[in-house]
Amino acid sequence: MYRWANDLFPICRSITGKGAEETLRYIQTILPEMEIRKVPTGTKAFDWIVPQEWEINDAYIADERGDRIVDFKKLNLHVMGYSTAVDETLSFEELDSHLYSLKDLPNAVAYVTSYYERRWGFCIAHSQREELRKEPHKKYRVKIDSRHFDGHLTYGECVLKGESEKEILLSTYICHPSMANNELSGPVVAAALGRYLKEAPRRYTYRIVFAPETIGSIVYLSANLKTMKERTIAGFVLTCIGDDRCYSYLSSRYGNTLADKIAIHTLKYIAPNFKRYSFLDRGSDERQYCSAGVDLPVCLIMRSKFGEYPEYHTSLDNMGLISPAGLEGGFNAVKSCLDIAEANYVYTNTVLCEPQMSKRNLYPTMSAKGSADKVRTLMNFLAYADGTNDLIDIAEILGVYAGDLIEIANILTKARLVTRNDDL
Amino acid sequence: MYRWANDLFPICRSITGKGAEETLRYIQTILPEMEIRKVPTGTKAFDWIVPQEWEINDAYIADERGDRIVDFKKLNLHVMGYSTAVDETLSFEELDSHLYSLKDLPNAVAYVTSYYERRWGFCIAHSQREELRKEPHKKYRVKIDSRHFDGHLTYGECVLKGESEKEILLSTYICHPSMANNELSGPVVAAALGRYLKEAPRRYTYRIVFAPETIGSIVYLSANLKTMKERTIAGFVLTCIGDDRCYSYLSSRYGNTLADKIAIHTLKYIAPNFKRYSFLDRGSDERQYCSAGVDLPVCLIMRSKFGEYPEYHTSLDNMGLISPAGLEGGFNAVKSCLDIAEANYVYTNTVLCEPQMSKRNLYPTMSAKGSADKVRTLMNFLAYADGTNDLIDIAEILGVYAGDLIEIANILTKARLVTRNDDL
Amino acid sequence: MYRWANDLFPICRSITGKGAEETLRYIQTILPEMEIRKVPTGTKAFDWIVPQEWEINDAYIADERGDRIVDFKKLNLHVMGYSTAVDETLSFEELDSHLYSLKDLPNAVAYVTSYYERRWGFCIAHSQREELRKEPHKKYRVKIDSRHFDGHLTYGECVLKGESEKEILLSTYICHPSMANNELSGPVVAAALGRYLKEAPRRYTYRIVFAPETIGSIVYLSANLKTMKERTIAGFVLTCIGDDRCYSYLSSRYGNTLADKIAIHTLKYIAPNFKRYSFLDRGSDERQYCSAGVDLPVCLIMRSKFGEYPEYHTSLDNMGLISPAGLEGGFNAVKSCLDIAEANYVYTNTVLCEPQMSKRNLYPTMSAKGSADKVRTLMNFLAYADGTNDLIDIAEILGVYAGDLIEIANILTKARLVTRNDDL
Repeated sequence: MYRWANDLFPICRSITGKGAEETLRYIQTILPEMEIRKVPTGTKAFDWIVPQEWEINDAYIADERGDRIVDFKKLNLHVMGYSTAVDETLSFEELDSHLYSLKDLPNAVAYVTSYYERRWGFCIAHSQREELRKEPHKKYRVKIDSRHFDGHLTYGECVLKGESEKEILLSTYICHPSMANNELSGPVVAAALGRYLKEAPRRYTYRIVFAPETIGSIVYLSANLKTMKERTIAGFVLTCIGDDRCYSYLSSRYGNTLADKIAIHTLKYIAPNFKRYSFLDRGSDERQYCSAGVDLPVCLIMRSKFGEYPEYHTSLDNMGLISPAGLEGGFNAVKSCLDIAEANYVYTNTVLCEPQMSKRNLYPTMSAKGSADKVRTLMNFLAYADGTNDLIDIAEILGVYAGDLIEIANILTKARLVTRNDDL
Repeated sequence: MYRWANDLFPICRSITGKGAEETLRYIQTILPEMEIRKVPTGTKAFDWIVPQEWEINDAYIADERGDRIVDFKKLNLHVMGYSTAVDETLSFEELDSHLYSLKDLPNAVAYVTSYYERRWGFCIAHSQREELRKEPHKKYRVKIDSRHFDGHLTYGECVLKGESEKEILLSTYICHPSMANNELSGPVVAAALGRYLKEAPRRYTYRIVFAPETIGSIVYLSANLKTMKERTIAGFVLTCIGDDRCYSYLSSRYGNTLADKIAIHTLKYIAPNFKRYSFLDRGSDERQYCSAGVDLPVCLIMRSKFGEYPEYHTSLDNMGLISPAGLEGGFNAVKSCLDIAEANYVYTNTVLCEPQMSKRNLYPTMSAKGSADKVRTLMNFLAYADGTNDLIDIAEILGVYAGDLIEIANILTKARLVTRNDDL
Repeated sequence: MYRWANDLFPICRSITGKGAEETLRYIQTILPEMEIRKVPTGTKAFDWIVPQEWEINDAYIADERGDRIVDFKKLNLHVMGYSTAVDETLSFEELDSHLYSLKDLPNAVAYVTSYYERRWGFCIAHSQREELRKEPHKKYRVKIDSRHFDGHLTYGECVLKGESEKEILLSTYICHPSMANNELSGPVVAAALGRYLKEAPRRYTYRIVFAPETIGSIVYLSANLKTMKERTIAGFVLTCIGDDRCYSYLSSRYGNTLADKIAIHTLKYIAPNFKRYSFLDRGSDERQYCSAGVDLPVCLIMRSKFGEYPEYHTSLDNMGLISPAGLEGGFNAVKSCLDIAEANYVYTNTVLCEPQMSKRNLYPTMSAKGSADKVRTLMNFLAYADGTNDLIDIAEILGVYAGDLIEIANILTKARLVTRNDDL
């Protein structure tokens, strides 16, 4: 995953344009089941309209000697996303209102966009800006070679059919330029999960979406809402899932969906110190998936949450911020959730009173002090396999990790002491 | 309000009689919409019967020289409420069983009544009683010029029609003689709220009741129960609302009515240290309004609660105990509740996914670190305006004061991004 | 009760056989209403089959001189329950795999059984075993004079009819050999409760079951499940209820039955430091009564819980462990629960608004500071006697012991201010 992210890092992505498409083509080499779809400029999607496509070829600020002192080719964050074209010579004073920098992180370059109002701008280190400010009347050649045109918005979609039509959604976004945790970690973890899932037996169908943030998920929902509302039993937005500082969870609108239940239970056992965020702290595509009336059962599993780490939305969110171990941890957290989801049936006992376990070799035949402890968990599972609890409910009642109950559930199912049902 | 209370203070009120009526006439000068109603002695009201009217003209204890040592004309608390007439000369020893005093507050005169058993009695300072006790055989002229006769019970009722037939009840009582916090603060705050409401646009109809405590509210309920049960969405008993020591809240029978919800939310923000009392601590007309089978959604907002301050039901509950600021604070607390009640619609979003706020000038057009914070509350309101939450629910979810959301609710309603409904 | 336990102590009980029957015959002398029932070997009961009956006459280990070094006649725990017959001469090495002892309690003899797999074994003090181990080749005569044959399983059943067909279940077990707290305390407390109940007025019918643990309750349930599910409103398993170290409560499967409600409320007031155990800590016949699909409203009230005291399932659980005071405390705890259950009607007020208590001599006729306190509990009872609360609900709301409200409930019922109903 780290290598994939490294390959994708230099590409200049935005909500439309070549960078997004190039990124999707790369992901297709990992997950060929993913299909690339295009939606024309002007397409309506709920309250929104797909904007014009943005193409950027070059951009720089050059000094009087013609030396590029700010160069898009060295760091694509230097250009404000969706900047209009410009080719002028300006004094610093004139240029200054088009510059964006961060006082608090004087050596970082900020990530700034203006998708829905035409502007141009450069993002530079605050330290550099302060240097330039010393000679306010010096002239600069300012060039942005970009254009806006009727084109397409591009996204990727991968549907892996399972036994059931019911679906689990994984969604991530491919519109961020050269930043690593936010957001190459999401696409590479999503791709790796796709590879894992396509080889695994699947009770559920999996829908994996790679789309530009906000407008992409809105466009996707406007095309698929009915199906998704009927079928989706849980979903996870994958973002900021590649560093190794912590694990984070952000809830759905009310925190009461199956996705939340799975995520909270799983993180409680595999990352007990995970940080919990409410939907009030939201910021990614859960804003759309969980919006009122859409109401998909979607939550977020992250490492360091967007907006909570200092490098967020700056050039410091680079390949050094994420790590193979960080990505692996993120992958495993989501994979554990999916494994539990697959085993999360409602279990119902088939025998009144306790079954005689000893005749099935599931219980010690001799009752002595302590002997019962060994099969305690098995008997406890049976006690609460009463048709009102799913695997996670039983795990919560027993105070154990649901992942550790899967084997017991399978033993009891095979012994026909429980049946399993999809729903209550 | 303080001036009104001061004017009303000297009047000798009881559950019937001239004092109550005189008080109502004064309130009519402030709130002419209030009508005075009379109910004849002997009228049945649930388990009760309207008692005979009580008239008191004079009362005193005079010493052997004829000097009045206890004089109703100086302090009407000196006579036990509803005392029968007496005109005798008694030794202190004979008199003593008719005297009521407070050991713990030796200079205060207690407030004592005997509405439903015929007695006579005087309330005097305990210090004075101890003085008298020194000469047990001394004789005293004891005179109470009172009479009981078939007359009326009198109460005031003011109904201010609103857009809806649904009602908010305000209820206070006018049966206490010269005491200030309990109970002139309630009537004057109720009168001031009436004046405020009659000038305000009113979604709800307001029913303001000025009645003698207990028998008055029982009589009122027996005449109006069906209508009130159908229409009342919330109500507040106004009592002990004029001092400036604290704010208090006393819940309805189960604390789960809209009135409780409004009061708790409002006090949490405008008086965070407010004291919470359960219905087990009740003592005013909530005893009737919230009784089983009556079940009106009524709670209490007070300053210092009855029974909880040392001056309660004594001559020390005088005009020095309440203050203009205390009354103003009480008025504002209830007014805030009513303002929130008026805006407390259920809000429902009209657009799937987040609306594009920038095209409506409700969102910054440029996305940079932190820019979203400014409209965070607006977007949060929208997120939870899903047809399942009223204004207070949304405020509780967002962790903000509902009063501060009213403007946002109006902006979004005007922008047609939400609709509002009366009920879930 | 202590004397009864003392009489029963020496009998060698098991899940079948003469000891259980002898025990039941003794209990019949205390509670003649109890009938003894027999179920033949081979009878099916849900997943189980009634096993062969086990008869034991003698058992010992004798040394080379013929001296009995381990003797069943001195302590019946020495023989593993349900041991097959054996008559051999073995070296210690050969014998050792048939010995059971407790390293942690080197002087205690463990209680071990093997009901469903044919084995033989001796339980001896670990200290003795260590002594024998020193001479591994020494020979021992090992004799168990036992037999298994098609016979019966025996249990006792006592049904005391009440006004209603609805039942309260008391269940205990009679299959443990010479141990006192676990389990002679249960049978003797059950017998004493039977004697109390048969003399008392009974709203409910009482079903008292004395059966061997596990197989006995399973057999009983398989014969009576339909009736018991229809009629049982609450039940208590009586076990480990004779020592005086603490009080314990173990919940039903979800802890939400009427039995739990009664037990928790009662213990909270009569034994505030009682220990609470969850159903995960279960171990007696609640395993069957509360199993999924059986779902009887049953919980446990104990003194020191099985498995939680060091003497449990050893020869140290002897008559010195229990005491008359311990048994009395256990008896009273359950009796208090039953008394409350009998009075646990749903109460409904008959009068709208507060009734006029003074005309019924239920309220002081003169209102002065503090006078209302005296009748506060009575008025509070009335306030919540609204047809939605039973006696315990009201007690919980008022923060008082339900046992202390029974008199008030009776006063108000007699005054026709409340009616009482069986159910919500």
